[in-house]
Amino acid sequence: MLMVDVIRKKRDGGKLSKEEIDFFINGYVAGTIPDYQVSALMMAIYFKGMDDEETGLLTQAMLHSGEVLDLSMIPGFKVDKHSTGGVGDKTSLVLTPMVASLGIPIAKMSGRGLGHTGGTIDKLESFKGFTTSITNEEFIENVKNVGISIMGQTKDLAPADKLLYALRDVTATVDNMSLIASSIMSKKLAAGADGIVLDVKSGSGAFMKNDDDARELAKKMVAIGKHAGVKTMAVISDMDQPLGRAVGNTIEVREAIDTLKGKGPEDLLKLCLTLGSYMVCFAGRAASTSEAEDMLKEAISSGRALEKMADFIEAQGGRREDVYNTTASLPRGKKRFVFNAEKDCYVSSIMSEEVGNASLILGGGRRSKEDVIDLSVGIYLTKKVGEKCRAGEPVAKLYGNDEAKLSEALERLKGAYAFSDEPVPKNTLIRGIVE
Amino acid sequence: MLMVDVIRKKRDGGKLSKEEIDFFINGYVAGTIPDYQVSALMMAIYFKGMDDEETGLLTQAMLHSGEVLDLSMIPGFKVDKHSTGGVGDKTSLVLTPMVASLGIPIAKMSGRGLGHTGGTIDKLESFKGFTTSITNEEFIENVKNVGISIMGQTKDLAPADKLLYALRDVTATVDNMSLIASSIMSKKLAAGADGIVLDVKSGSGAFMKNDDDARELAKKMVAIGKHAGVKTMAVISDMDQPLGRAVGNTIEVREAIDTLKGKGPEDLLKLCLTLGSYMVCFAGRAASTSEAEDMLKEAISSGRALEKMADFIEAQGGRREDVYNTTASLPRGKKRFVFNAEKDCYVSSIMSEEVGNASLILGGGRRSKEDVIDLSVGIYLTKKVGEKCRAGEPVAKLYGNDEAKLSEALERLKGAYAFSDEPVPKNTLIRGIVE
Repeated sequence: MLMVDVIRKKRDGGKLSKEEIDFFINGYVAGTIPDYQVSALMMAIYFKGMDDEETGLLTQAMLHSGEVLDLSMIPGFKVDKHSTGGVGDKTSLVLTPMVASLGIPIAKMSGRGLGHTGGTIDKLESFKGFTTSITNEEFIENVKNVGISIMGQTKDLAPADKLLYALRDVTATVDNMSLIASSIMSKKLAAGADGIVLDVKSGSGAFMKNDDDARELAKKMVAIGKHAGVKTMAVISDMDQPLGRAVGNTIEVREAIDTLKGKGPEDLLKLCLTLGSYMVCFAGRAASTSEAEDMLKEAISSGRALEKMADFIEAQGGRREDVYNTTASLPRGKKRFVFNAEKDCYVSSIMSEEVGNASLILGGGRRSKEDVIDLSVGIYLTKKVGEKCRAGEPVAKLYGNDEAKLSEALERLKGAYAFSDEPVPKNTLIRGIVE
Repeated sequence: MLMVDVIRKKRDGGKLSKEEIDFFINGYVAGTIPDYQVSALMMAIYFKGMDDEETGLLTQAMLHSGEVLDLSMIPGFKVDKHSTGGVGDKTSLVLTPMVASLGIPIAKMSGRGLGHTGGTIDKLESFKGFTTSITNEEFIENVKNVGISIMGQTKDLAPADKLLYALRDVTATVDNMSLIASSIMSKKLAAGADGIVLDVKSGSGAFMKNDDDARELAKKMVAIGKHAGVKTMAVISDMDQPLGRAVGNTIEVREAIDTLKGKGPEDLLKLCLTLGSYMVCFAGRAASTSEAEDMLKEAISSGRALEKMADFIEAQGGRREDVYNTTASLPRGKKRFVFNAEKDCYVSSIMSEEVGNASLILGGGRRSKEDVIDLSVGIYLTKKVGEKCRAGEPVAKLYGNDEAKLSEALERLKGAYAFSDEPVPKNTLIRGIVE
């Protein structure tokens, strides 16, 4: 088989066979097929697409390009969760201890963030001593003993996806549904869970700019998961404004802890309950999502969800008291700039990406892999879409350690907001469910 | 400027600027832009195309990526010729001495063949002692003194095109009009002629499978040439069957010499007269193409064209007597297989590519750069499209040195022919002129 023939076939709109897909993935990982042929194929796929069967085959090829985690030593039904990423998204920090507190084992792999804010791992490192650099054995032991563990993604997991993603990133071939779906699902399936819930963000601040695109991606991923014999569903959720009110690292962890204490923002709680209810149902612990939601609410009101968070942080090197006293344990930037409303008005929109950029300017995210994040900086959105502002009232607050950066970020943040004299409806958070 | 942005722009159907085109060509030649980004861009161009301005800018960028030959020391108007390649195409061997014999300087760079038969250089090497490995200085001296010289393409000519072509070849991005046109024209313009005549082949045996495609390519190349200030025209000629009757190397040179002696096949002569008449007109030596054709016919009938061929071969190391006595100097394969007609019929079609493959099987072409050509093998098409065959009469003859190869080639050749009981019209040789 010649790679040039595989490229030509896709270029001409043909359907790639299992043999052809395995050939190029295995050859690429082995180094016998060069980058320049793979990037040409990626561009041909960008233009000609792949059907569900090809997408599934590509996922399987990437998934089997490296280690596939075996979680069978952990008793119970293991559910994983993935988000396509958005601004202010601290869902995993609330969802995983909440579900784990019901006795459903959580074995999750997470990544570091590249962009506006840190990833789940960066945020968790806000807790002194906490680490996700643990071995597969420690990971499995923690899930068994504590009921929850989160580890950094190992290098051996879906190496083909890593190679391919890095190549797509520099060749303008990221934006293709099949390639995105197979990239996400190959990693998720290699992580070995029995069920996967997906949070597909839709809106200006997300990779999918509208609900139709988000639904298409969700459908592709759910089809791949089911085809692989794994229970899979997706929630399509709003990213036309940031999720919750906190954007940054320590500030987002505080908000997550507040939510576990029953004092979190409404939208974040609702999203966690929705995703969580499917996780509970997948695990066979509730007959309906409404029953599951009640169980999750009780986990919060009883304090068991927060306790599970403390168990988890402690088991991976942190201090449990830091979970209870976040004012002391999760410091905010030393300087505060406030964006006040000029007149009475309603917030009509908040461009999530620009809020993210303001956070990046403060030092809360990475422009390149080598950047060091300042975990203490962040933004608090006092007012969100549909909320009324009185003249002089704070719309948002910025926490930072450098006045020049703060004033640049403030300007950026001001540009992210739009206001209206008339009342504005609130955004719909849950845009759809794909099962 | 980031290469990924250039790729994205073209992927999204944008028009590349001079700065963007220069950036990627210069970066590619300098090694700062990697193959994998260039191949992704080539695939995006394959799908989104380039307009005439972009194509012209790409040509200029490639043309100036290396040495540009300065032929100004040679007095007179220098005309070059290029063919897009076909089976049995020995046009240059007839055309260049014929035109040179009228006192029009011919300074031509040629390549070796990769495919069915050798290129012009391989064919010329049928003459013992003849070489095209001469310096730029020798090349220019020969043109001045003899009126004609042909040399191998130097490595320094349009290096960007060499890199790009090699990359396109293995990434299924060859078949794009703008990329083909700029590739050809960058080399031709770098070779420094004042005028260029192009022979764009059209038909099953050519790169351009139909007249519409051939005309589109011709128009693009003529536009590029004129825009660069060089007189340029193109003839669109038939490649639905091989040109002339000889396919191979020594056998094609024999046919070319026969044509210079006034005893060549009608189609080959006609194509040479057509292309030649434009060369003569470009050089300002005739007022009309019909006047120019008469001059060229006279060059043949007077023997001056053949004499110029002898001068040329001698000037580059060959023996002039070998031009006059080709039976001795240009040996044919020792064994002959004949394809005889089974019954009375007319030739209805000859698949050029399959005739080429039969020649390749005999050993007359290269499958890879390292292959050594057997110059003596070849095929003679006794019957061409529209010609009548009587039962038992030879349709074609194969000359080779290996019986197994000969019998395989014979089968291949039989498959290339189709016959009809009814008379069939002859092919139209000249399909169009683009000025």
